[in-house]
Amino acid sequence: MDVYGKGTSIAQWRRLIDEAYSGSFQGPIVNVDDGRDPHFDAIFVGGGSAGRFGAAVLRSLGGRPLVLERWPFLGGSCPHQACVPHHLFSEAARELDQAQALQGRLWYPEFDPTAASVLELVELFRSKRSGPHAHMNWQSAQQLDIESVLNAEAQVLDARTVRAAGRTFTADALVLATGARTALPGIEGETLPGVFDYASFIEDLDYEPRKIVVIGGSKVAVEYASFYRATGTPTTIVSRAELLTSGGPARMDVDLRRFVVDGMRLRDLELLEHSVVTRIVGCDRVEGVEIETPEGHRFVEADFVLLGTGEKPNTASFASALPLVHDDRGFVVVDSRMRTNIDGVYAAGDLIGPPMEMFKSRRSGTTAARNIMGVDATFHYDDIPDFLHTTYEVTWAGLTEREARERFERVVTIQVPPIGMDPADTPLPMAEGSMLYGFTLPERTGFQKCVIDATTRRVVGIHHAGYGAKDAFQYLHHMISRPEGLTIDQLGDMNELYISSDYFIGYARLRSSQADLTSM
Amino acid sequence: MDVYGKGTSIAQWRRLIDEAYSGSFQGPIVNVDDGRDPHFDAIFVGGGSAGRFGAAVLRSLGGRPLVLERWPFLGGSCPHQACVPHHLFSEAARELDQAQALQGRLWYPEFDPTAASVLELVELFRSKRSGPHAHMNWQSAQQLDIESVLNAEAQVLDARTVRAAGRTFTADALVLATGARTALPGIEGETLPGVFDYASFIEDLDYEPRKIVVIGGSKVAVEYASFYRATGTPTTIVSRAELLTSGGPARMDVDLRRFVVDGMRLRDLELLEHSVVTRIVGCDRVEGVEIETPEGHRFVEADFVLLGTGEKPNTASFASALPLVHDDRGFVVVDSRMRTNIDGVYAAGDLIGPPMEMFKSRRSGTTAARNIMGVDATFHYDDIPDFLHTTYEVTWAGLTEREARERFERVVTIQVPPIGMDPADTPLPMAEGSMLYGFTLPERTGFQKCVIDATTRRVVGIHHAGYGAKDAFQYLHHMISRPEGLTIDQLGDMNELYISSDYFIGYARLRSSQADLTSM
Repeated sequence: MDVYGKGTSIAQWRRLIDEAYSGSFQGPIVNVDDGRDPHFDAIFVGGGSAGRFGAAVLRSLGGRPLVLERWPFLGGSCPHQACVPHHLFSEAARELDQAQALQGRLWYPEFDPTAASVLELVELFRSKRSGPHAHMNWQSAQQLDIESVLNAEAQVLDARTVRAAGRTFTADALVLATGARTALPGIEGETLPGVFDYASFIEDLDYEPRKIVVIGGSKVAVEYASFYRATGTPTTIVSRAELLTSGGPARMDVDLRRFVVDGMRLRDLELLEHSVVTRIVGCDRVEGVEIETPEGHRFVEADFVLLGTGEKPNTASFASALPLVHDDRGFVVVDSRMRTNIDGVYAAGDLIGPPMEMFKSRRSGTTAARNIMGVDATFHYDDIPDFLHTTYEVTWAGLTEREARERFERVVTIQVPPIGMDPADTPLPMAEGSMLYGFTLPERTGFQKCVIDATTRRVVGIHHAGYGAKDAFQYLHHMISRPEGLTIDQLGDMNELYISSDYFIGYARLRSSQADLTSM
Repeated sequence: MDVYGKGTSIAQWRRLIDEAYSGSFQGPIVNVDDGRDPHFDAIFVGGGSAGRFGAAVLRSLGGRPLVLERWPFLGGSCPHQACVPHHLFSEAARELDQAQALQGRLWYPEFDPTAASVLELVELFRSKRSGPHAHMNWQSAQQLDIESVLNAEAQVLDARTVRAAGRTFTADALVLATGARTALPGIEGETLPGVFDYASFIEDLDYEPRKIVVIGGSKVAVEYASFYRATGTPTTIVSRAELLTSGGPARMDVDLRRFVVDGMRLRDLELLEHSVVTRIVGCDRVEGVEIETPEGHRFVEADFVLLGTGEKPNTASFASALPLVHDDRGFVVVDSRMRTNIDGVYAAGDLIGPPMEMFKSRRSGTTAARNIMGVDATFHYDDIPDFLHTTYEVTWAGLTEREARERFERVVTIQVPPIGMDPADTPLPMAEGSMLYGFTLPERTGFQKCVIDATTRRVVGIHHAGYGAKDAFQYLHHMISRPEGLTIDQLGDMNELYISSDYFIGYARLRSSQADLTSM
């Protein structure tokens, strides 16, 4: 189908995507100016966040990009199977947590766990996900002027040539952005029906889970397990290490981590740490998992198992044509300009390995685009802001208290609840999202910590569990990471929007005039 | 009662405050070092946010402050009758809005408007408000080392002398911070039982309102009316001007304001603009209000009327002793160092007039403290970030689009939903707090606009309705207000925490490479 110059509306895109995804429409969706030579400044193989943002910036710089995407929409796995459903489910988890905790109080009726359905939420997401997809297709074509071929597999022929939809396209540069998928851990039984990963769970779930085991101890495991449990479904997490101590969240402050993990226990999520699943058991479908725990062998019944155990890159569309250098997990190796070992071939997004985060994906794509257009740009992502969801939004940036104490001579912290105080003994911190808890179950409001190098007075780490502060951490991270940093005195001179989800400005002000900073 | 050096815990403070407020304990609560001369560097008359923060900073600078407060706690009206209950009720409004909108879907049962009770929420707040009070008393004594006399009226004798609790205290300087209260509008019937202001509503409500009229068109009116309506109670707002066009929110962007007001109408809040209440009617108690509307005379039945019509300063404790210059509404006039016309007498907080916002109150108190301690400090609050609640968090900073177009030659905007698009046609923007709406009622997710001077590429205005972005606006306001400003290119180079409540970073990145910026 040729959509070039047709001014397709969001509603029209939605129908087209739905038809393509259901199979009632087949064949490529071509948004290419056939009046021009099929030669481009860059071809983006993969139209996820890296490819789409890269193409947008290349176009902004006056270049002509082509995006090739096997799905009938741009935006990639995020709106289809990853960040968007995860956010929907995490919001459901938060609301369900409140509905459960406050049942019988105020206007909250008795909580009916049979009314909260994992399947229904998955079906809701599936039935409506083409809305965001359609918005991105509309935006990419109408606002960003990006040419694309959707709903077609691409095959890279060489460093300048790609075939898709029966046509051959050439370009001065290639940007590979084909993403990643779950790496199966190699556990016996992992292919049984009822065993899912984050993608197949969205695509294939067709029954209501009654007892869930989540294998893994990092973000995906914690986020999905928190959601399942919030629906009232008994859920067990099995993690080799302590929860949230490996992978992305390795650098969580211990006090932040304690509040978060205690909160999961408080909600009757079963946590088996230092434990290994030795076998997933079942005949026609999963019936349970065998686990080695520090206390010995356990069998945990389950009709649903989620593998949250890491990812591997998608390389099929280019592996045979391009002898690329990759790391030991198969991720494509790039420099800080997103250049691979092959001249004119760039890579971006999940394909280049962790962190599998949106900003890294987008910025790696735009960094490639700039360099292709002759604008020198580098991107480093060793110091990043980070977050995850449980029934809370958990956000952190900069150094943990421990890291700061290793690095600096005098470190002070500002903490709510105060150091050593039981969260049940004070309703603080509370703000938007935790007010009802503040007045009913004060131990549930949240936790926050600001870490300061007392010598330079610079804020070096920020840590938060609660609601409404995640957005702020984007800007706080920027400010504390600038060469000049952010001092507690500068922070205390800002204008807070009280009650602020993070209390950093107000508390900084209380301390900012202290010549010799002390903790509080 | 002498509490000095006793190490009173939060739990002990809570009991003491409850006893004092109920009248079962009477007399002053004295936290003063009697081993020292009763002479202080500064006496803060009033222990609200201005006095408490001022005292903390004076102490940090090595000074000795004394805070005198008529209530048995520090922190003032905010945790007692103003910002804290307002936040609790606004969170309830948001949750009730969702419970109503999503009834019969997912786990949400049919919404029972009789279960949602204004009275019950007020009673919940009243029964638990001593929690935050106690935290502030504990913090002020234990962490901030502030001496105080609570639960005692203070009387200023001269510019250096104050009497409280039968004792006389002297100081080198006074900081007046006695706050403000509702200015009755002078409408016939305004003193009838059933007519409340924001304070008496909290203190005195003892029945469930069945039909509510709110008089006023600015923040307080809009916030409380949105809450009442969300409980299912029929509610009418009567406003002389268009809603949210006078007072603090005078500078709301028209598109932001439209989204917000349309959202109130969508929720069946009756809005009578350009209308004047001529009489509040009733015999023993309020029965309704007479209103002149552009369409003629109306009588609206009501058993509860809220006056949201402005404030006047509390001057009784010092008016006779100090010939202070005040403005035509009675607010004490100060310079940018918070100095009044009397040498050594400063004023801060709501007493010096609008904006009645926490950051202004706190920073005016700390500015006074610094100057008293010989640290030159000024505080200007003509360019401020601002917010209000409906069932949304509504936040803005910098210029409206109209103001920017008056000031700059070339202005572009980045807007979600896109310019001219019906919010029902796209689920975007959606993020934490609006995910469930995005997948069910997309017109309810929110609105955002970024205003950019295309010539300098600087972000000059930011506007948001939704959830989770309010905290970020504190830092964004700081950055766009710096002399060097914040360009769209700098914004696009930050690391977003996707899905971000504000889409500013991601959208800025899509545009940041454009040499000649265009709107999207």
